[in-house]
Amino acid sequence: MTRKQKPVKDSFVIMTELVLPNDTNTLNNMMGGRMMHLMDIAAAVAAQKHSNRIVVTASVDNVSFREGIKLGSVVTLQAQVTRAFSSSMEVHIDVWAEDIPSGTKFKSNEAFFTFVAVDQSGRPIDVPEAVPETPEEHSLFEGALRRRQLRLLLAGRLKPEDATELKSMFAIE
Amino acid sequence: MTRKQKPVKDSFVIMTELVLPNDTNTLNNMMGGRMMHLMDIAAAVAAQKHSNRIVVTASVDNVSFREGIKLGSVVTLQAQVTRAFSSSMEVHIDVWAEDIPSGTKFKSNEAFFTFVAVDQSGRPIDVPEAVPETPEEHSLFEGALRRRQLRLLLAGRLKPEDATELKSMFAIE
Amino acid sequence: MTRKQKPVKDSFVIMTELVLPNDTNTLNNMMGGRMMHLMDIAAAVAAQKHSNRIVVTASVDNVSFREGIKLGSVVTLQAQVTRAFSSSMEVHIDVWAEDIPSGTKFKSNEAFFTFVAVDQSGRPIDVPEAVPETPEEHSLFEGALRRRQLRLLLAGRLKPEDATELKSMFAIE
Amino acid sequence: MTRKQKPVKDSFVIMTELVLPNDTNTLNNMMGGRMMHLMDIAAAVAAQKHSNRIVVTASVDNVSFREGIKLGSVVTLQAQVTRAFSSSMEVHIDVWAEDIPSGTKFKSNEAFFTFVAVDQSGRPIDVPEAVPETPEEHSLFEGALRRRQLRLLLAGRLKPEDATELKSMFAIE
Amino acid sequence: MTRKQKPVKDSFVIMTELVLPNDTNTLNNMMGGRMMHLMDIAAAVAAQKHSNRIVVTASVDNVSFREGIKLGSVVTLQAQVTRAFSSSMEVHIDVWAEDIPSGTKFKSNEAFFTFVAVDQSGRPIDVPEAVPETPEEHSLFEGALRRRQLRLLLAGRLKPEDATELKSMFAIE
Amino acid sequence: MTRKQKPVKDSFVIMTELVLPNDTNTLNNMMGGRMMHLMDIAAAVAAQKHSNRIVVTASVDNVSFREGIKLGSVVTLQAQVTRAFSSSMEVHIDVWAEDIPSGTKFKSNEAFFTFVAVDQSGRPIDVPEAVPETPEEHSLFEGALRRRQLRLLLAGRLKPEDATELKSMFAIE
Repeated sequence: MTRKQKPVKDSFVIMTELVLPNDTNTLNNMMGGRMMHLMDIAAAVAAQKHSNRIVVTASVDNVSFREGIKLGSVVTLQAQVTRAFSSSMEVHIDVWAEDIPSGTKFKSNEAFFTFVAVDQSGRPIDVPEAVPETPEEHSLFEGALRRRQLRLLLAGRLKPEDATELKSMFAIE
Repeated sequence: MTRKQKPVKDSFVIMTELVLPNDTNTLNNMMGGRMMHLMDIAAAVAAQKHSNRIVVTASVDNVSFREGIKLGSVVTLQAQVTRAFSSSMEVHIDVWAEDIPSGTKFKSNEAFFTFVAVDQSGRPIDVPEAVPETPEEHSLFEGALRRRQLRLLLAGRLKPEDATELKSMFAIE
Repeated sequence: MTRKQKPVKDSFVIMTELVLPNDTNTLNNMMGGRMMHLMDIAAAVAAQKHSNRIVVTASVDNVSFREGIKLGSVVTLQAQVTRAFSSSMEVHIDVWAEDIPSGTKFKSNEAFFTFVAVDQSGRPIDVPEAVPETPEEHSLFEGALRRRQLRLLLAGRLKPEDATELKSMFAIE
Repeated sequence: MTRKQKPVKDSFVIMTELVLPNDTNTLNNMMGGRMMHLMDIAAAVAAQKHSNRIVVTASVDNVSFREGIKLGSVVTLQAQVTRAFSSSMEVHIDVWAEDIPSGTKFKSNEAFFTFVAVDQSGRPIDVPEAVPETPEEHSLFEGALRRRQLRLLLAGRLKPEDATELKSMFAIE
Repeated sequence: MTRKQKPVKDSFVIMTELVLPNDTNTLNNMMGGRMMHLMDIAAAVAAQKHSNRIVVTASVDNVSFREGIKLGSVVTLQAQVTRAFSSSMEVHIDVWAEDIPSGTKFKSNEAFFTFVAVDQSGRPIDVPEAVPETPEEHSLFEGALRRRQLRLLLAGRLKPEDATELKSMFAIE
Repeated sequence: MTRKQKPVKDSFVIMTELVLPNDTNTLNNMMGGRMMHLMDIAAAVAAQKHSNRIVVTASVDNVSFREGIKLGSVVTLQAQVTRAFSSSMEVHIDVWAEDIPSGTKFKSNEAFFTFVAVDQSGRPIDVPEAVPETPEEHSLFEGALRRRQLRLLLAGRLKPEDATELKSMFAIE
């Protein structure tokens, strides 16, 4: 039996948020934990759109934070599924921050989250294949295997010598 | 001039939280983004205690989520600085979840967050050295270099061939 | 001196939200006040993008609520400036609600909000002209005058006999 | 069978709120969306008191916002049912804002919300008649028909030529 | 110089709140801590109205919780200053809970909070005298001295033998 | 049948919180009601750990607030059961506040909360005996009877002449 196929772009989600006082530290900059909270919600919606299922966060890859984002800024998150495995989906998230009065806008974060689709009892359930179409989508699709090996390795569930895909990442023969 | 030294254990923080309705998804399990929000606050307090400074989140390493945590559970986070670099500190966080009526308790997450200490204008500022004492603290201290190389590599700020510390992680000669 | 011109589409904003427990009443449906809170934020961001200014809500036109929106639904708000007057801007908002597991999606609300751009002391300040381009944008632009008269009339700041634009709305000769 | 009757004043509700940091924009003034959120809760409680039922928001009439309300101000909302139709009720809300240290107090908003009483499955259910007693209550009761026609007209559910009650509002012969 | 006088009833405040999901425990009953949070806000507003000053909570007397308050209930708090000392004010709070569908209403709490009026630098500042008028207000005014002695005694700032007012409370000669 | 025994220290809970903007008043100090909300959660977790049951707040003893706690401070709450009666438990809470940049730390509150353990239908249910071990635990255990009499007396459920334990508190023969 063949698995249902769905273009990755069908999962595309845009989320816009205003940085409110309670999101900020004493320097009036958005706290990292609040940003991860938003990224998780945006990414979960993308995974839900792909799978038409309730989804639960399985893992978050390394996220780095650069410039501070000021109170009152507009934060825009864009999330899209990159690849689906049997019941799990990797989602790519890009975040921009815009300070309206000064007119400055910069990319503040980029991250990969993984979600598992579950049924009403919380058991994993298969999801459609995610089909990339544009060159950028293809590149994210290809990289997904490599990132998955890194996740398994970091979680101690894959032996280094079996991480064949990963070797290219570290430019190792 | 020698840098001030401080035992890592002085930064130790315990945070206990109750899982409330708004923290949960439609399966009544805690959402991953909310958990990362709590981990960021616990870890930030540990970094503040070590540095006596305002701190900002610089990066979050790969976090994986295993079992669901039910509404009403008690979540306990323990955070402690593992190592300090000039103005940055790596913090290790362990999370346990406990379902009181059933008496079940399990380790739900483990993560490393990195923070930068800043002055009142938000500029990075040096922090004391973090001195490990117990064998476990020593082991986390040693691993910090390796994890730092992985972070720099993933952020594209270190070339794979220069990641000498990291090689042991992947058991590569 | 001529006023700066800006296409209305530059103000376009998409906001995606998950309906969380605290947003709902005892029937597990989203409360109307919470929806208006979201509409106000989405519309404010659109007005900020058009004006590059802090904006304050000046008025909300009649909003009606049809079907209930279930806990866990994905709510998508689309907001865009329709027309700018000297320091005020009318924003049109469309809201869709999607229940992921059942796959149902429906338009739940449509509304017009008006904002005033202000400077740092809170005083009204001029904004660029908003230029419609598509037929739909032109239609919303034309209707803005009529809706404005209705607002002034309802606020007791325009005499019925002077509401010339409004007459067409009521099909009155 | 005759319908139960209840004085409108039995539904009277007073709600007092403090403007907290997260309710405010970067000018430290309360955001319009937060005010509508409060008005919806106060009005819903009034409709619940009249009907002894769960109620859902059906519509909000035009609301205008005048002066800014400062952080720390005391906001007082007074809501009362004006008239009941079969399963729906119109509620009138008056809002005052008071800045305690300066001693200034002003009426900031006035609005009409409409609610529908529903049973446990969310189906509309009849409510008691709302009986006005004071001259002001009678005036609000009379105006309710006119406002209802305007709502239906704006929602495209009434033809302009059938809006007989509404004509007086626009002083049209 | 004589101190300004103000009737206690000028400080009267009514606050109405809906019990939302995040206010409740896993039995769907309102948590005690959330109730104390509301009581503190209502009482603070009463103290602000009496003093026209920013006020800070100085103490909370023994509060007991009887019946559970269900999710969706309407909670009504009434607060009024009972007596003013130099810069502090005692406030009496009565709380009722009403379950709309079942039509049950009961008094759930009664408490005394004490606030201190402060200037913009946070220093205590004198407040007007609070003048009781009705018999009930007189009785609360009289009792305020006794409750104040109990507070001082419990805080270790009054010796038992000096608590002359308190003796009547314990029916001691 | 003998009742199960459990050391009081098994219920020990540490909770660490950051003071966020929405927790503060216009002087940027934490509000008393927010502090009581935190104390209730910390104490409830301690009572849950002792009883392995859902617990509901039964009463809060007199709490006094001394110094203001600044925005951005770290608040540490320590809660532990002092004594168990049939289905109720008294919990002692100590609160420290630490202003990281200035390095000041002070004890801000101390309180006793009482909780009742309940089954899934909300009915009181017996809890294990709480066994004190250290001298400090013994002293809190002994005092629990006296504080309980004061609570019953204040709630009008004990006659002054029967409050035999309490007399020592007031140094009365």
